[in-house]
Amino acid sequence: MWIQKQLTLKCHPRGFHIITDEIERQLPELRQIRTGLLHLFLQHTSASLGINENADPTVRADLEEHFNRSAPDGACWYQHDYEGDDDMPAHIKCSTLGCQITIPISSGLLALGTWQGICLGEHRDQGGARRVIATIHGE
Amino acid sequence: MWIQKQLTLKCHPRGFHIITDEIERQLPELRQIRTGLLHLFLQHTSASLGINENADPTVRADLEEHFNRSAPDGACWYQHDYEGDDDMPAHIKCSTLGCQITIPISSGLLALGTWQGICLGEHRDQGGARRVIATIHGE
Amino acid sequence: MWIQKQLTLKCHPRGFHIITDEIERQLPELRQIRTGLLHLFLQHTSASLGINENADPTVRADLEEHFNRSAPDGACWYQHDYEGDDDMPAHIKCSTLGCQITIPISSGLLALGTWQGICLGEHRDQGGARRVIATIHGE
Repeated sequence: MWIQKQLTLKCHPRGFHIITDEIERQLPELRQIRTGLLHLFLQHTSASLGINENADPTVRADLEEHFNRSAPDGACWYQHDYEGDDDMPAHIKCSTLGCQITIPISSGLLALGTWQGICLGEHRDQGGARRVIATIHGE
Repeated sequence: MWIQKQLTLKCHPRGFHIITDEIERQLPELRQIRTGLLHLFLQHTSASLGINENADPTVRADLEEHFNRSAPDGACWYQHDYEGDDDMPAHIKCSTLGCQITIPISSGLLALGTWQGICLGEHRDQGGARRVIATIHGE
Repeated sequence: MWIQKQLTLKCHPRGFHIITDEIERQLPELRQIRTGLLHLFLQHTSASLGINENADPTVRADLEEHFNRSAPDGACWYQHDYEGDDDMPAHIKCSTLGCQITIPISSGLLALGTWQGICLGEHRDQGGARRVIATIHGE
């Protein structure tokens, strides 16, 4: 069985956010799958999608700090700055963190570990709503 | 339907390159898929495969600069330098950026966002032609 | 054909480890697949899963050194340090390197390049045994 849907994520402020519930609410079809895979593909190059610790908000704050130190806003050597100081760092973070993940589905549920959540990295100051293509495949 | 092919990418100079057209030209089979996934797997550990901004070449120049600063050629502490100053940094960049991606297929087309392209990171000075295993699966 | 199994990786010390054999030994079902994909999903947020050079151990030593320099143990600005100096850096490394990969299967074998191996990044000093959900799909 193949199911493909376009999801819209609400506007999130810059930083890292656990969005497991936001994704699952839009995918009731997951319950129909005994064994399969969910693929999530963010259609943007200035935000990222990954798996992260789902419990302690300081983990997400520290991730934001780490990646801001690695790719600082407005570094003097960026050539690409059309859309402001957060433009090029957002592309660097998206490249580093990725924009797509695959998650196993077992007995109608995402087979995430106890401490794992789906994590949106919003790397723009004003990223707006983000589009995700969800592809479910299984039996 | 499963289709698996070995693709060859032409020699690209060191740096980041949008290869969406180069990939699509070698995969006319995509048009047969209404709903599915394309998986691309680069069979190398000194180049990378990802999704990036497809419009402004300065994004790719800034990515090259950023990753060269993160993993400089010939850092004094590298133990692995058999093949020269660009050897170990290439492995670090490949680990960081990844060598495989999955892209949704909708109505015979890759469901990339407006500004997204498939991006090859060539991290060797003389990387040569690169092999990619493309696996298309869908209905 | 869909096959999904929970694998257990033995305890590995902190650092990078090639685990291709350890994975393949637990997946004799691969031989039944002519064309397909293997998805590996590590159910943890303090270790990582990727593809890396499979031959020279100094590559793995240099990767460990690089990522320790990027995300040092016990940096003074980490807020999240419940479980010690290696706690937050492990989450940063897991985000950067990823916790899941997809590998093509061709004629019953993983279609890895000559120098590629499946690489576990153990980012905790005492990570213990790690769980991986393996999903094989193909024909």
